[in-house]
Amino acid sequence: MPYPETFEGYMIKDQSKWSDFEKKEFKPKKFEEYDIDIKVDCCGVCGSDVHTITGGWGECPLPICVGHEIIGKAIKVGSKVTTVKVGDRVGVGAQIRACMECKLCKADQENYCPHKIDTYGAPYEDGTIAQGGYASHVRAHEYFTFQIPDNIESKDAGPMMCAGITTWSPLVRAKVGPGKKVAVLGVGGLGHFGILWAKALGAEVYALSHSPSKEADAKKMGAKEFIVTSKKDWHKPYAFEFDFILNTADMTHTFNLQEYMSTLNVNGEFHNVGLPDEPLPKMMAQDFAPNGAKIGGSHIGNRPEMLSMLKLASEKNIKPYIETIDISEKGCKEAVERVKKNDVRYRFSLIGYDKVFGER
Amino acid sequence: MPYPETFEGYMIKDQSKWSDFEKKEFKPKKFEEYDIDIKVDCCGVCGSDVHTITGGWGECPLPICVGHEIIGKAIKVGSKVTTVKVGDRVGVGAQIRACMECKLCKADQENYCPHKIDTYGAPYEDGTIAQGGYASHVRAHEYFTFQIPDNIESKDAGPMMCAGITTWSPLVRAKVGPGKKVAVLGVGGLGHFGILWAKALGAEVYALSHSPSKEADAKKMGAKEFIVTSKKDWHKPYAFEFDFILNTADMTHTFNLQEYMSTLNVNGEFHNVGLPDEPLPKMMAQDFAPNGAKIGGSHIGNRPEMLSMLKLASEKNIKPYIETIDISEKGCKEAVERVKKNDVRYRFSLIGYDKVFGER
Repeated sequence: MPYPETFEGYMIKDQSKWSDFEKKEFKPKKFEEYDIDIKVDCCGVCGSDVHTITGGWGECPLPICVGHEIIGKAIKVGSKVTTVKVGDRVGVGAQIRACMECKLCKADQENYCPHKIDTYGAPYEDGTIAQGGYASHVRAHEYFTFQIPDNIESKDAGPMMCAGITTWSPLVRAKVGPGKKVAVLGVGGLGHFGILWAKALGAEVYALSHSPSKEADAKKMGAKEFIVTSKKDWHKPYAFEFDFILNTADMTHTFNLQEYMSTLNVNGEFHNVGLPDEPLPKMMAQDFAPNGAKIGGSHIGNRPEMLSMLKLASEKNIKPYIETIDISEKGCKEAVERVKKNDVRYRFSLIGYDKVFGER
Repeated sequence: MPYPETFEGYMIKDQSKWSDFEKKEFKPKKFEEYDIDIKVDCCGVCGSDVHTITGGWGECPLPICVGHEIIGKAIKVGSKVTTVKVGDRVGVGAQIRACMECKLCKADQENYCPHKIDTYGAPYEDGTIAQGGYASHVRAHEYFTFQIPDNIESKDAGPMMCAGITTWSPLVRAKVGPGKKVAVLGVGGLGHFGILWAKALGAEVYALSHSPSKEADAKKMGAKEFIVTSKKDWHKPYAFEFDFILNTADMTHTFNLQEYMSTLNVNGEFHNVGLPDEPLPKMMAQDFAPNGAKIGGSHIGNRPEMLSMLKLASEKNIKPYIETIDISEKGCKEAVERVKKNDVRYRFSLIGYDKVFGER
């Protein structure tokens, strides 16, 4: 059965064979009055996709079609949809649903709603498992569907839907802007967005990386300085320096966290958006005392933040560093294997959907 | 040699005999133009005193005279002192000096100055070890000496100098006030101040304790609810509830930290002012994701905060719950041993200084 009864996607059946994608049909949730059907044209490849299919973050329902940096065209809209019309180019990120009724949803904190549904691997109320954007179509609630400004190419907009908002939200919540010094830790899929956003917001940006090879790129993205954290005593000249550290690394368990914390200004925050498979290094309550620092983290962002991010990206013509790969069993395999090895500068977008799924 | 060449105090010589105080003479730092000599009349007994003399926080210079919740009368003021005159009743807390020149000092963050000197156990530039308030006199820089409002009794003002400011500073920095829900974890020397301050600032206060016996007191102090954290699933009804948790417990290493974190509202903070001798429980970066929470801590407070605390305490006639003990070898021993056992409701002040040190 073709669309609209079924969608087609590149799926993983077994976490022990986490890069063996297979093109398969699956049934989407029932179409409801706030839903939008999107013919997918592009999907970014997120570290979360890899953590999910490898089992790094635990078990997941199988088979699974990952992908939550989705750009495509609206081809059908529910009777109550007001923000999107058929033909619009739209995006969907890592969240596909929230209750819209709890105190968090009412306070524009729907990304923390206890009833939130992830874009893939999560059950809807009727038991249907949500599936992601390595697929012909996605069915999304309009609140989690975003108009894409005309001057942002789909391959660039895709990764903004998760990597973009994940770094944007904590920066704006921390009021990063002129007069603030921001360190971005890790120059990768997330971190390169962190540098671009922090710079665009007017902050003085410092890129921290264990790998000296990324210096030229980091400076091109807007970093004022590039600090190599594999050098002994790298932190000493930066005591009390940074108002905010955006930690995008997923190797935090190997860090000397006290060294990083010592570079925070008074009441500064070490904010984790990279999510390692291992616990954070041991900390004493005393470790917060030298500068009244904090360690925190966050989960994507809310709708107003998604819209403000897209607006700034459009106005300032901000371009992430994206490699593209044509979607296919082989293309998906290459993408996730290279993301696992950090062999991408700095994010993949899967494209060429019409070649494998037809015009739709 | 008597004052002003030497002071006298109750000192510990050996951390393995941490409650064997001995009355001894010691030499204060050289008197300088910003210094004030204070005849001590009262000193609160702080958990820090116990952690220091027992070695829980490591080695310290010996012999040591602890005590950093000091109230007394100014008997001599340096040539450049403008804020205190001879005869004034003044207080001194846990910090006795800062460089006053670094970017932190200039930003009213002198409590984080990297050159700060603790009131006891820390070396001055000339090598003299600062000694605390279980003593006849204290010599303090005027910036760390505070006028005590007339309507606050010395026995009540003493504990405000450390326990008071340690809980006050993080509450005001977190903008605790009307419309905010604050949980105070631990109803002890620090925690009872936390409840009093949070209530006085206009917040809705929840007292959390493993010990049901403190309910009546906590409610009298201003807690709206008393939550017994030793009950299974205590946290479940409070998901996303608290804007701020002030953790005053020093047994945090035994906690299920994820349960406590789950009670924080979005972007709320679990703030540590209790300092256990052991590391915090293991955390994943993921543990911050459900509500975008933070874990932090702080170190006492700055001078403007000390003054605003004393002003509010005076205006609202806030009275901490204080037991008094006459200072002596025996009195000091009883005080620190009972603090170690948490056998005090809720803070000791040593008084009766004239009986052992004379009129001075």
